[in-house]
Amino acid sequence: MAALKLGMVGGGQGAFIGGVHRMAARLDGCFDLVAGALSSDPERAHASAAELGIDAERSYANFHDMAKAEAARADGIDAVSIVTPNHLHGPIAEAFLAHDISVICDKPMTATWAQAQSLAAAAKASQGHFFLTHNYTGYPMIRQARQMVADGVLGDIRFIEANYLQDWLSEAPSADNKQALWRLDAAQSGGGAIGDIGTHAHNLACFVSGRHATALSATLSSHVPGRSVDDDARVTLQLSCGARAHIWVSQVAIGNENNLTLALYGSQGALRWAQENPNVLWLSEWGKAPQAITRGSGAANSAAAAVTRIPAGHPEGYLEAFATLYREAADVITSQHRPPHTLGVQAGLDGMRFVDACQRSSRNGAAWIELP
Amino acid sequence: MAALKLGMVGGGQGAFIGGVHRMAARLDGCFDLVAGALSSDPERAHASAAELGIDAERSYANFHDMAKAEAARADGIDAVSIVTPNHLHGPIAEAFLAHDISVICDKPMTATWAQAQSLAAAAKASQGHFFLTHNYTGYPMIRQARQMVADGVLGDIRFIEANYLQDWLSEAPSADNKQALWRLDAAQSGGGAIGDIGTHAHNLACFVSGRHATALSATLSSHVPGRSVDDDARVTLQLSCGARAHIWVSQVAIGNENNLTLALYGSQGALRWAQENPNVLWLSEWGKAPQAITRGSGAANSAAAAVTRIPAGHPEGYLEAFATLYREAADVITSQHRPPHTLGVQAGLDGMRFVDACQRSSRNGAAWIELP
Amino acid sequence: MAALKLGMVGGGQGAFIGGVHRMAARLDGCFDLVAGALSSDPERAHASAAELGIDAERSYANFHDMAKAEAARADGIDAVSIVTPNHLHGPIAEAFLAHDISVICDKPMTATWAQAQSLAAAAKASQGHFFLTHNYTGYPMIRQARQMVADGVLGDIRFIEANYLQDWLSEAPSADNKQALWRLDAAQSGGGAIGDIGTHAHNLACFVSGRHATALSATLSSHVPGRSVDDDARVTLQLSCGARAHIWVSQVAIGNENNLTLALYGSQGALRWAQENPNVLWLSEWGKAPQAITRGSGAANSAAAAVTRIPAGHPEGYLEAFATLYREAADVITSQHRPPHTLGVQAGLDGMRFVDACQRSSRNGAAWIELP
Amino acid sequence: MAALKLGMVGGGQGAFIGGVHRMAARLDGCFDLVAGALSSDPERAHASAAELGIDAERSYANFHDMAKAEAARADGIDAVSIVTPNHLHGPIAEAFLAHDISVICDKPMTATWAQAQSLAAAAKASQGHFFLTHNYTGYPMIRQARQMVADGVLGDIRFIEANYLQDWLSEAPSADNKQALWRLDAAQSGGGAIGDIGTHAHNLACFVSGRHATALSATLSSHVPGRSVDDDARVTLQLSCGARAHIWVSQVAIGNENNLTLALYGSQGALRWAQENPNVLWLSEWGKAPQAITRGSGAANSAAAAVTRIPAGHPEGYLEAFATLYREAADVITSQHRPPHTLGVQAGLDGMRFVDACQRSSRNGAAWIELP
Repeated sequence: MAALKLGMVGGGQGAFIGGVHRMAARLDGCFDLVAGALSSDPERAHASAAELGIDAERSYANFHDMAKAEAARADGIDAVSIVTPNHLHGPIAEAFLAHDISVICDKPMTATWAQAQSLAAAAKASQGHFFLTHNYTGYPMIRQARQMVADGVLGDIRFIEANYLQDWLSEAPSADNKQALWRLDAAQSGGGAIGDIGTHAHNLACFVSGRHATALSATLSSHVPGRSVDDDARVTLQLSCGARAHIWVSQVAIGNENNLTLALYGSQGALRWAQENPNVLWLSEWGKAPQAITRGSGAANSAAAAVTRIPAGHPEGYLEAFATLYREAADVITSQHRPPHTLGVQAGLDGMRFVDACQRSSRNGAAWIELP
Repeated sequence: MAALKLGMVGGGQGAFIGGVHRMAARLDGCFDLVAGALSSDPERAHASAAELGIDAERSYANFHDMAKAEAARADGIDAVSIVTPNHLHGPIAEAFLAHDISVICDKPMTATWAQAQSLAAAAKASQGHFFLTHNYTGYPMIRQARQMVADGVLGDIRFIEANYLQDWLSEAPSADNKQALWRLDAAQSGGGAIGDIGTHAHNLACFVSGRHATALSATLSSHVPGRSVDDDARVTLQLSCGARAHIWVSQVAIGNENNLTLALYGSQGALRWAQENPNVLWLSEWGKAPQAITRGSGAANSAAAAVTRIPAGHPEGYLEAFATLYREAADVITSQHRPPHTLGVQAGLDGMRFVDACQRSSRNGAAWIELP
Repeated sequence: MAALKLGMVGGGQGAFIGGVHRMAARLDGCFDLVAGALSSDPERAHASAAELGIDAERSYANFHDMAKAEAARADGIDAVSIVTPNHLHGPIAEAFLAHDISVICDKPMTATWAQAQSLAAAAKASQGHFFLTHNYTGYPMIRQARQMVADGVLGDIRFIEANYLQDWLSEAPSADNKQALWRLDAAQSGGGAIGDIGTHAHNLACFVSGRHATALSATLSSHVPGRSVDDDARVTLQLSCGARAHIWVSQVAIGNENNLTLALYGSQGALRWAQENPNVLWLSEWGKAPQAITRGSGAANSAAAAVTRIPAGHPEGYLEAFATLYREAADVITSQHRPPHTLGVQAGLDGMRFVDACQRSSRNGAAWIELP
Repeated sequence: MAALKLGMVGGGQGAFIGGVHRMAARLDGCFDLVAGALSSDPERAHASAAELGIDAERSYANFHDMAKAEAARADGIDAVSIVTPNHLHGPIAEAFLAHDISVICDKPMTATWAQAQSLAAAAKASQGHFFLTHNYTGYPMIRQARQMVADGVLGDIRFIEANYLQDWLSEAPSADNKQALWRLDAAQSGGGAIGDIGTHAHNLACFVSGRHATALSATLSSHVPGRSVDDDARVTLQLSCGARAHIWVSQVAIGNENNLTLALYGSQGALRWAQENPNVLWLSEWGKAPQAITRGSGAANSAAAAVTRIPAGHPEGYLEAFATLYREAADVITSQHRPPHTLGVQAGLDGMRFVDACQRSSRNGAAWIELP
C-alpha cells in the first residue's frame, strides 16, 4: 500500500502533540507528511517545515491558504492532522472538509458545544472523513476489553470506573509552559481537566462498554490560586443500560503522571486496565482466580491481535496505540469502509456534550442534566 | 505486666469475628479469656466455652447474667469483647458498662443512631472504658501516615479518597452463610455495605487526616435481586478544612477481596496505602520520585515504630493490626491514660452519624446533609 | 484443647527471635509459657521472666537446671523452645531430649555438622519430639504450592529457583547490634548467610518440591572489610529427580529486606511466590494466562485451607506462618501423630549437611560435593 | 535533517524482526527504506518489496547484487539493515562494508567466533560504520542507570544480576514456526538461548556497568527432547573490577514472555529494572526508602532525557528503544561523530567471545575460561 499524503496544522517548534502525531503517522508507514501550516507565526511555521523536510512551497502561512492550495494540487494531501489548541479545531477542520479533504483531529473535537455542532454539519456535507484521536482506544488491551464486554464475559454491567489522574498542574505553571498556559485559558481550551482528560475517560468508558450516558451529575473544582478553569472533576453518568459510570479526573493529584485507569464490574466478572502498564488486562471471573491477559499472548482475542505489532513481553506503548488510529484512518480513506471502532464526529459530539453538561451541572450544584 | 481478664459475648462456634478477636487478644499476651456468653444458643455457648478452655462456671447463657456475675466476682473480668451482630452491640455494652466493666466492641458501634446515643450516655456514666475496634487503625503504616499528615508533609489537604471494595456478596448468599445473612438483614445490621465497611473507610479517612465531615451527600444502591440493603455506596464528604473526601465501598465488585485503599492528596505531596499489602506506604512529594516507605525500615517514623513487632520485610498482617488495638486497650485499662489514637465512643458516634446521614441523603436523591 | 506448657531457653530482654516464638506460641492458644532460662546472664534471665509473667521459681539460671527441674515436676513443661545463638542449639536440645521433653528449635539445627549428628542421635533415643522452625513452611501459599507440585500441576520439574535477599549486613554492624554480632561470629553461628538464610532457601525448595539434593556446588563470598563469614552465597543443587535447583542468598543486597522468593518451573507450568507479599501464589500454566491464587479464596486448595485463619484479602503474615508451626507441634505432642509437613531432625540434618557441603565446595573452587 | 536512504537484507513476508527494524527506522523519520533483498526466495523478495513500496528496480534477488548495484548508484543507500538468521550476518555485512556502505546488524553479530573476527577485520577496513542492535540499550531508563553507575551512585559494584527469561520454546515448535526453527538449528543460529538472548543479558550488564568480563564459567542445558541447542544457561562472569555478574537466560521458563531484568548492587545502593515495564528504574540507596524513577520525570537524568520522546506516564516501549538506535545510527552517519553508547564491532566481538566461551566452558563441566 502506497503511503497517503498528510498535511498538518499546528505542531511547529515547541509544540508537544504535533510531534506525537507525526511519529504516530510514520510508525506504520501509512502517511508521508508533505504539507503544513505548522504555526500561526509564519517564520516559525517555515522553519518547522524545513526541519521536517516539507517542501517550502507546501509550507503555508495559514490554514485557509493551505486548504485551498492543497485542494487545487493534483498531488494534494489526502488528509490533514489538526494539532492546535482546541478552539481552532473547528474552523480548521471545516476549512479542509469544505474541500473534501479528510481530517484527523486531536481531542476534544472543539472548545465549545456550538463549534461541535457546526463541525458536525460540515463533516456531514463533506466527502472527506473526520477522525478524532481518542488515542487510548488504540491500545490492544482496550480492544480486547471492548470485545470481551460485547461477548458478554462480564454478564450485566453493574458499574464502570474511569479515572484519569495527573499532577503536572499541581502548581501554577511558569510563564514559558506553553502547553499548560493554553489549557488553562478557557477561551482556547473550552475548559480545564474536564475537556483535556475528562473527555478521554468518558470516551474510554463508552468505547469499551458500548454504553452511552443518558444523564450526568458533575462537580468541577479548582485547587490552585488564580486558576479560572477546573483542575479536578467528579462525574456520575447514568448509562443507557441502567448502570452508572463514575469518572474522576484530576490534574493536581500529586504522584500521578498519566494514570488513566478503567474498570468494568459486571454480574459475572470484572476487567481492569491501567494505561501506564497497558500491555496487561486483568480479568476476574466470579469465583475464579484473577488472570493477567497480556498483549500478544495466547489469551489475547482477535480484536487485540488485529492491532498488535510485536510479540508478548515486548511492550507496546502510547505511540503504538496512537499509530493504530493513523493506520486505521488510512485504511478508511483507502477502502472507504469505516469499521465501528473508528471514532469520528459522533464521538466528538458525545464528548463535547459531556463537557458542556458537566459544566452546566457543576454550576448548578451537581444537578442532574439529561443528555439527549 | 500480668495479663488482664477478658470476657466475650458472641463469637461461638461458626462465628468469624470472634475468633479474630481472640487471636488479637492473645497475640501480645495482654488478655486471658476467662468468661463468655458465646452464643444465644446455650448449648452452643457452653460447647464453645469448653473448646476455648473457659471454666464451665464462667460460661453464661446470656450477657445479662454474665455482666452481673462477673461484676460480683473478686476475679471478675477486666473487659468484655462484644462480637455479636450489630443490633446487640448497644444493649450488651450498656449492660457491662453499667457494672463499670470496660468494653471492647466490634464496629459499627450499633445498628442505629438512637442506639449509638444511648450507648454514648451509658459510657459517659461508667467507670469502664469503651473501645471500638476500627482495626485498620492499628496498621503501622496507617499510624505513619497519620503522623506524616499531622507533621504537614502533604501541605494543605486537597482531597482524600477512601475505597473499600469486596466481592463476597456479588450473588445472593446460600442459606448457611451466617455471616452474610445477618449483614443483609437491616434489623440486625442497621444497613448494608455502608455500615459494614463504609464505617471503616469513613473512620480511616478521618483517623489519618485528623479531619471531620461537616456535611455529606450519598448514593446507596443494591445490585442483587431481592436484596433489601445497600451493597454499594458512593459518598462525598465536606471536611472541616474545606477539602472533600470521597468514599466508595462495594460488596459486589468482583475481583476485590478486602481492597481497602486510602489516598490523601495535598498541595505538597500525597500518600497512598492499600490494606492488602499493608506494610508499605507510598509517599509522593511534589517534584520528587515516589518513595516506598516500609514498616520497620529506617524511613518509618515513631508512630509506626511504636506498633511494630518484627523487622522490615517480614510482613505483619490483619491480626497484628487488630492485636495492637487490644494491647492499647490493655494499656488504657491498666494505666488509665488514654492517648488520642485510641478510638471509642466519639468514633462510634461519628460512624453512626455517618451511616444515618448517608441513608437519609440517599433516600433524598443524594441531597446534602449537614453533620453537627 | 487445653494449652500445653511451654518453656524457653534464650529470648531474654534485647533478643529478637524469642519474642517471635512467644507470639507464635500464643496466637492460637496452644501453649502457655511457664518456665524459662531466658538469658545466660542470670539477672537478665530473671528480669525477663518476671516481665513475661513466669513464676520466679520456674525462672532458671541455666538450661541444665531447667531441664532437670522441669522433668521432675508433675506440672513440668511439655516442650521447650530454643531461641539461642546456633552453637547452643545442640547442647540445649540434647539436655531436654534426655528428659523426654519435646524440643521446638530455631534453625539452623546446630552450628556444625558434628553437633547435628549428635543431636540426631539424641532425638532418636528420646520419647520427646524434635521440631525445627523453618517458619516459612507455615505460609498457606507454600502449603498450596507443595500440594500442587505433588498433584503434578507443573509436569516434570525443570528447575527451581530459591533466593533469599537481605541488606541489613551491607555495612559492618555497630557494636550494640547483638543480632548481627553473633551471626558474624563463626564460632557462634557456624557460618554466615549460608547458615542463617541459605538453610531457609534450601529447605523451602525441598519442602515444596518434595525433592532432595544429591550433590551441590557452592560459592560463598564476603563483601565487607574485616568480615570472616560469608554474606553472599550462590549454590547449585543437583536434585534426585534430575533437575537442578539454584539458590542465591545475600545479606548485602541493598534494597532487599527479607526478599525470599521461590519459583518452580516444570514442563507444564510454573509457580512463583514471594515472602514479602505471601498471600498470593502465581500459577502459570503453559499456554494460559497467569493466575493469582490467593490465600482464603476459592482457588486455594485443602493444604492451604488447613492453615488459614482469616478470609481472603485480610493478609496473614510472618507471625501467623510461625504460629502454624507451633500449632502443629502442639498437635503432634497431643496426638502422637506426626504428618509429613512437620519438620524435625531430618530437615535439620539436611540443612546442616547443606551448609557443610557448601562450605567445603566453596573452599575448593565450587567443586561438586556428593550428598549421601 | 533529510532522511537517509536505507536498504534491508532479510525481513520479507513471514519474518518477524524485519518488521521491527522497519518500524524502528521509520519512527523518527531518519531513514527511508528504498532498497532490499528481502528474502532468499526471489519471488517472496519482490512481493515483499512491492508491499513495502520499494521500487522494483531496487528489489534485489540477493545481497551481493544489491551491495554492488547500490554502491554504483548516485542515490545509493546510506546504510543497510541486516535482519537474517545469524549465520548470514557476517557475509552480508562484509559485502556492504566492502563498498563502504554502513551496516545496521541485528544481534548476535554472527553465528561463530570465526565469522565475528572476519567481520571485525572487514569493518576496520571500511569507511562504512557498523552498528549492532542490542536494542535494550536504547531504553531511557537503561541510559539513566548507565549514567548513575558512572556517577558513582552505587559506590563499589558488588554484584550484577542479568536475567532474560522466556517460555516460547517450552515445547518443540510446530513445523511452520520459522522463527523457532532457525534458532534451534545450530548451523543457522550458532547456538540456542545463549546466543539469542544470552548476548542481550551479557551486553546489558556490561553496557550499564561499564565493566567487562575477564573470565567466565557457564552451564548450558536443554530441556526438550530432541533439541540440540541449549535452551537455558547459567553463567558467572568475573568482571574487571573484581565483582561478579550472574546471568540466567532461559527459553523454557513458563510464565515469562520477555522477562529481561537487570540489577546492580553496590556498596552504597542498588538499581533494578525490568524490560516488561521499562519506564521505571528502582533506586535503593543504603538506609533510605526505595524510589521509583520514571522516564520523563524530574528525577530522570540527562542521559535518559536525551532519548525520551514523550512525557512521563505515557509509556514508551520496545519499538521506541529500538528506534533510538536507528536515530543514533543516522546521527553517526551524518555527523561522523560516534558517542560511546553507540554499539558496534567491539560489542559484537564481546558478545561472540562470550557465546564461544560459554559453550566451551559448558562442554568442560563449567570450567573457568579466561577472556583476553
